Amino acid sequence: MQKRVEEQLFQRLVEISGKENVITSASGIEDYTRDMADYEATPAVVVRPRSEQEVVEIIGLAIESGMPVLPRGAGSSLTGAAVLKGAIMLDMRGMSRVVKVDTVNWYVQVQPGISLEDLNRELKASGFFFPPDPASSYICTVGGAIAEGSGGLRCVRYGTMKDWVVALRVVLPNGKVTRLGEPLAKNRAGYDLVHLMVGSEGTLGVITEAWLKIVPLQSVRTRRFLVTFNDWESTGEVIRRLRSSKILPYLFEFLDRDNIQALNEKLEASFEEAEATLMVDVEEGEEVQLATEIFRDCGARRIILAKDEEEAETFYQARSMAYLAVKSLASGVQVEDVVLPIDRLGEFLKFVKEVASKYGIKIPVNGHAGDGNVHPTILYDKSDEKSRATANLAYEELCRKAIAMGGSVTGEHGVGVQKTRFLREQLYSHEGEEALRLMKEIKKIFDPDGLMNPGKYVEAA
Amino acid sequence: MQKRVEEQLFQRLVEISGKENVITSASGIEDYTRDMADYEATPAVVVRPRSEQEVVEIIGLAIESGMPVLPRGAGSSLTGAAVLKGAIMLDMRGMSRVVKVDTVNWYVQVQPGISLEDLNRELKASGFFFPPDPASSYICTVGGAIAEGSGGLRCVRYGTMKDWVVALRVVLPNGKVTRLGEPLAKNRAGYDLVHLMVGSEGTLGVITEAWLKIVPLQSVRTRRFLVTFNDWESTGEVIRRLRSSKILPYLFEFLDRDNIQALNEKLEASFEEAEATLMVDVEEGEEVQLATEIFRDCGARRIILAKDEEEAETFYQARSMAYLAVKSLASGVQVEDVVLPIDRLGEFLKFVKEVASKYGIKIPVNGHAGDGNVHPTILYDKSDEKSRATANLAYEELCRKAIAMGGSVTGEHGVGVQKTRFLREQLYSHEGEEALRLMKEIKKIFDPDGLMNPGKYVEAA
Repeated sequence: MQKRVEEQLFQRLVEISGKENVITSASGIEDYTRDMADYEATPAVVVRPRSEQEVVEIIGLAIESGMPVLPRGAGSSLTGAAVLKGAIMLDMRGMSRVVKVDTVNWYVQVQPGISLEDLNRELKASGFFFPPDPASSYICTVGGAIAEGSGGLRCVRYGTMKDWVVALRVVLPNGKVTRLGEPLAKNRAGYDLVHLMVGSEGTLGVITEAWLKIVPLQSVRTRRFLVTFNDWESTGEVIRRLRSSKILPYLFEFLDRDNIQALNEKLEASFEEAEATLMVDVEEGEEVQLATEIFRDCGARRIILAKDEEEAETFYQARSMAYLAVKSLASGVQVEDVVLPIDRLGEFLKFVKEVASKYGIKIPVNGHAGDGNVHPTILYDKSDEKSRATANLAYEELCRKAIAMGGSVTGEHGVGVQKTRFLREQLYSHEGEEALRLMKEIKKIFDPDGLMNPGKYVEAA
Repeated sequence: MQKRVEEQLFQRLVEISGKENVITSASGIEDYTRDMADYEATPAVVVRPRSEQEVVEIIGLAIESGMPVLPRGAGSSLTGAAVLKGAIMLDMRGMSRVVKVDTVNWYVQVQPGISLEDLNRELKASGFFFPPDPASSYICTVGGAIAEGSGGLRCVRYGTMKDWVVALRVVLPNGKVTRLGEPLAKNRAGYDLVHLMVGSEGTLGVITEAWLKIVPLQSVRTRRFLVTFNDWESTGEVIRRLRSSKILPYLFEFLDRDNIQALNEKLEASFEEAEATLMVDVEEGEEVQLATEIFRDCGARRIILAKDEEEAETFYQARSMAYLAVKSLASGVQVEDVVLPIDRLGEFLKFVKEVASKYGIKIPVNGHAGDGNVHPTILYDKSDEKSRATANLAYEELCRKAIAMGGSVTGEHGVGVQKTRFLREQLYSHEGEEALRLMKEIKKIFDPDGLMNPGKYVEAA
């Protein structure tokens, strides 16, 4: 785009959102050029809308100029979904109001720019909470979590974002505002478009308001275990045994030795550095007994039952920090996010270690055992082309293995630019060829001119 | 269609599915000309496919002949969704196998033609159950319940069908088979097409297999209350108080005097005939105490706590029979299915009674209080045109009031032919004009030639 045209556009953005909410300087834009996995791309301009009406006007400008648009929350995406070259980027964090906490109908009406942590702080005052808790909850926004269909640690019990969104307000790529769904306990009026928006990764419209289900603060008393094992088969067996015993844990995480070592270093902690570590919350009483027996039967090295909430919280915080701790071990990281049938988790985890040893690289792995959701983190040297290529080979092997085992290449991080090829491979392998065709057509219906986060995800698959 | 062409078609259907599975005789077809609310239309032919491959071939014939197609389960729809004039009707009950009960991953893989009751019977053997329980569970099929996005009595606790379907196999209107979603605890690979199929009312494709979440048989001990009140405001207050006290009942139903009278007659029972009756399940212990206090505070006439499971079951069976009992009171019935914000339920129930008295008609009302889902049943004389017209006026007033109160015209019965106009009114009133446009375009993507259940629902709105 010509300089002059661009300047005119900036001027009009200033008229819409105010000078202080339009960022054009290279130094200001710098903050918006990366996501949390270091995918990089530089937007043309960043604007912080303060209202839905401003979003409508900005989309109008995008239509006029043909410039692509990307709404963004905290940019904590791990797949390149939240960066876009030459885009008008909307930093939605200027719209972060809790509009209404409805303690009778059990929902919260909220703007998209509030972080999940801040939302939960406000809900706590009314005795409620919003369960999905991505590790990035301390910064990630409601809008971003909806667009990514995010999961988290509590999701084994409570499900992911898709289970919690009841209605949305959206500015469509044609500049028109629409509501999708109804803020009601039940609604069958028309096809379900709410769920199309959940996990749409900024490709179908800009979310300007959301009605989310909430629940009373957990009243069940739970206890937290930290249990170590010498091998992965045993942890697989634990998972199978707990599920078969009909225990639905409130938390069910695992970490490998590399993760524990990285955490011990980062946090100056002294967790036992075993091959496999499980963190499991179950109900106080009978379930604690039963779980202890299962751990023992499966050959646990050490079973620690957190003595109080403080100790339990230490475990949780450590698990939440795992990605950042591991990330600091190498200049390059490739985070995986595959999902397996739960009964094949042990088998896959063993495969990850085989791949790491075959290529002579490190692949620390953690994840949500209760969901079958695994995060191998492939480490490499960013400045070394050969190292990058090797990491990529390992990445491909892991994705293909997951697909072959009936799994998915993404459970909660989404596709972005990272996994377009494997989205296609997965759908083609699992008889979803027509599904992919329909998805592409749906993208065209919502966004015929390809303005919203173009060149990624479904469109690029 | 010319007789000869039709006969050729029948012949080819016989070649596909066998003579015993193709119904062309008027007497045989008679069974397929009505739904449970007596919407009537006569299909051209009924075929009972025994496999997905047969469905593919039948859809191929429909494409060739241009004849419309309607998959049907038990025909327990209440909105005209399950009858279609001149259609090739697929009676899916020939495909009713439970393919796999996975007690580790907690899902069941099942063909669409099995009834929910039979499904639950099979699951019980493994110690699991499938929660959604429409009143028609004893006959309604998995495929029908998915297509209708059905709810039920337990849904206040467990949600409706949309919360339980993880993946589907579908024969699309172009004759191609696709899988939608993955039978995994989490999956973010592409837009969510599974939820488009849930509640699609047979307009987007034929469901040939489903993966449904299941859960262990309820281990929490609950108790069942039957509580009567002199007015509707009190019941509204009970609902508000229970929700505000963070009690999430396992069942939360209500019936009016007309329903109780009809049930007493039909079942030769002697339930107290009060203005309003609530049936409520809560956890044994503290919740029973707390609920009792709330009932008392709100001016309950009589509080019965079922003494054992047998008595509790009697209440449940009575509630399940309510529609049939009321239906037998008049030659014509129009069942409503509106949803209100829960805190405005009492207000709406009072309005229903005002409308009934204004038109001098009977509108028995029951529903799922915990969901804000109300079923006024407008009674009229089918043979009297004036009576039909009056019923229609009452129906319109109820729908418009629900829309004006921020409610929905359908919570679990869907739209069919009954509510196309009000689907439009609702979406237009609730800023969903663009949503309706997008729904219509989605229908065209899936079914460009309009073969599947045409002239209804979204397309007709």
